[in-house]
Amino acid sequence: MSLIVQKFGGSSVANPERLKNVANRVTETRKKGHSVVVVVSAMGDKTDELIELSKAVTDKPSEREMDMLLATGEQVSVALLAMALHKNGVKAISFTGPQVGIMTDRVHTKARIVNINADRIRKALREGNAVIVAGFQGQTEDHEITTLGRGGSDLTAVALAAVLKAPVCEIYTDVDGVYTADPRIVGDAQKLDVISYDEMLELASLGAQVMQARSVEVGKKYNVPILVRSSLNHTEGTLITKEVKAMENFLVRGVALNTNEAKVTIYGVPDKPGVAARIFKKLADHNVNVDMIIQNKTNKATTDISFTVLQSEIVKALATVKAAAAAVRAETVDCDENIAKVSIVGVGMRSHSGVASRMFDALAKNKINIEMISTSEIKISCVIPKACGKDAVSALHKAFGLGKAQKVMKE
Amino acid sequence: MSLIVQKFGGSSVANPERLKNVANRVTETRKKGHSVVVVVSAMGDKTDELIELSKAVTDKPSEREMDMLLATGEQVSVALLAMALHKNGVKAISFTGPQVGIMTDRVHTKARIVNINADRIRKALREGNAVIVAGFQGQTEDHEITTLGRGGSDLTAVALAAVLKAPVCEIYTDVDGVYTADPRIVGDAQKLDVISYDEMLELASLGAQVMQARSVEVGKKYNVPILVRSSLNHTEGTLITKEVKAMENFLVRGVALNTNEAKVTIYGVPDKPGVAARIFKKLADHNVNVDMIIQNKTNKATTDISFTVLQSEIVKALATVKAAAAAVRAETVDCDENIAKVSIVGVGMRSHSGVASRMFDALAKNKINIEMISTSEIKISCVIPKACGKDAVSALHKAFGLGKAQKVMKE
Repeated sequence: MSLIVQKFGGSSVANPERLKNVANRVTETRKKGHSVVVVVSAMGDKTDELIELSKAVTDKPSEREMDMLLATGEQVSVALLAMALHKNGVKAISFTGPQVGIMTDRVHTKARIVNINADRIRKALREGNAVIVAGFQGQTEDHEITTLGRGGSDLTAVALAAVLKAPVCEIYTDVDGVYTADPRIVGDAQKLDVISYDEMLELASLGAQVMQARSVEVGKKYNVPILVRSSLNHTEGTLITKEVKAMENFLVRGVALNTNEAKVTIYGVPDKPGVAARIFKKLADHNVNVDMIIQNKTNKATTDISFTVLQSEIVKALATVKAAAAAVRAETVDCDENIAKVSIVGVGMRSHSGVASRMFDALAKNKINIEMISTSEIKISCVIPKACGKDAVSALHKAFGLGKAQKVMKE
Repeated sequence: MSLIVQKFGGSSVANPERLKNVANRVTETRKKGHSVVVVVSAMGDKTDELIELSKAVTDKPSEREMDMLLATGEQVSVALLAMALHKNGVKAISFTGPQVGIMTDRVHTKARIVNINADRIRKALREGNAVIVAGFQGQTEDHEITTLGRGGSDLTAVALAAVLKAPVCEIYTDVDGVYTADPRIVGDAQKLDVISYDEMLELASLGAQVMQARSVEVGKKYNVPILVRSSLNHTEGTLITKEVKAMENFLVRGVALNTNEAKVTIYGVPDKPGVAARIFKKLADHNVNVDMIIQNKTNKATTDISFTVLQSEIVKALATVKAAAAAVRAETVDCDENIAKVSIVGVGMRSHSGVASRMFDALAKNKINIEMISTSEIKISCVIPKACGKDAVSALHKAFGLGKAQKVMKE
């Protein structure tokens, strides 16, 4: 008899049949006596279709008009879902993001939520409605329509759950939950029953596709339990929640692989204070996002600096880096796209030693060469040759007993 | 250097190519130094597609959710048109109906505009924008999205022209203007350069498809000159305006044919006060719209009553009429779907006599039997056998010299 926020992504509402399945799912929730707020994305490829339309008109669409265009996708979904719920005999009402007071800043196509006035949702809930809200969208103070960028519907759902103080925000997707590793790579990868916000944040930013980091951050900030589960079956899913003591019993919670980065190395950089800063400021000025950064001092006068960037930004990054390197009188710039980043994540690392050495040992035993290493409190990442990526994931999954460990936890 | 409101229908923006043509047209207007507010409908069959989607989900969609769904069609058009104008180097900004303060009553799917607060449009115009407004939609006081029903985009355009005191509202369509008769029926039908609101209202409600009656009524009420013209060429179009003396020089301005009605006759109705009222109240209670009504007293005690209804409503009408007829002890009910209504319209009728007799004479000479007659100050309608419809239009067009008369006016 509590309030549940449920979010369904585009593939869950891709056509009228799937949309009816979502309606049935929401109907079940209502029949159990829960109040429900449902957040929906645009149907299937709808957003891509709208982007194609804009491309047929202009090669440089204004971001304001893009938001105006894209926001229609979710509006179609919510109206249809409300209709499908009516057909099921469930009282329901749909709203756009602006209608339910989702206020954002003015940064079109990737706006941030600054405030939610949920009075209208509360009123509709009191009147016995299942409340259907268009994900991904909001409005500025002066009634301009904005969208929240990639993963925006997740963000709408978690933010609404926070404001409405819902005991849980359910994110329905096409996987059963968060796994110890990608099940397509590791046969005995185990679904996690529970994971901390911080662990999920590391996994999210490391390339696990389940949830966008921004939504997990908001969940952490407002302490909203997020249940990731499948819209295709009734298995339990994975609960993303605040850290509890028991989580520390596991050294490592999951292994992630990211093959979307490239490594750039600048050789012979004069080893003087402020030189590295000048290089990375140039990259920031050109909006190149840098991930891992390693500096190796090779002799007295110069140093080598390596960093990773998204492969999709490598052309822009190289042009900027070469100019910056010349400006600081570095020797040469080199680039390697044949890399992968493999990472292990777990809050248990904080209280246990020897995790790093066990990781390096497992990779060495499998003859996998480590090119770069980077660590955080709850994460260790290694850059390795791309061809070894899958072997590395399997080796680490086994070395940290993740297939077995998770089974024990379940029993 | 004045403000022009331009409205483009769905066929004018059916695909990106046509939408670019509209952008070019608006660009021309801006380059002449005019301010411009553009009202756009949903692209081509978009509205029908959305209706199909709703049908795939439910057979009885809620009207509120239908409005939520359909309003997205125009929103897509305005965003794309703004982008196309930017591409042309024209400063432009798009708005939904709710964003520009088009306030309506709460009657979903056929709302009436109650107020327009055009401050936001005025501000955008002052800032040098071509202002693109989504037609067909508005919102209620409590921010519910509404749509205005058939011809709603015309209504948006004329209402905005009224509020903004624009000297002209241009309605772009796929015909060159208003003709003396349907050019597909009458070879030498002439395009009218000018027509009065009242004449246009009679022609609109008589089946001329150019403009919906509601928009013409608003134009008349607020004295907005409406220019109906083609989006495919640059010919002059027809100006719908207030009546001027010169219009009376023409007995008849146009001939219209309506083949969508059926005739219902109730025989042997007791001829007592209040009986007809009881019958037509029943029809009104069942939302059957009645057009022409004729009563023929045939003998002392009883009378026959005939009326016309839309063919699409004939089943509902007959069921209601049969019940009502039995209740008042009438004899029988009969129905004839093989009828057509031919009408002549012109403000000149007010000051000229003999128009009716000339009409009846023309029909008689062509051996066309008249079944019902109905008149207003500026219109005479005759119900005739459906098979004679086109012949009747041609005969009347000729009898009133419409092919020639218009030519004279043009010279």
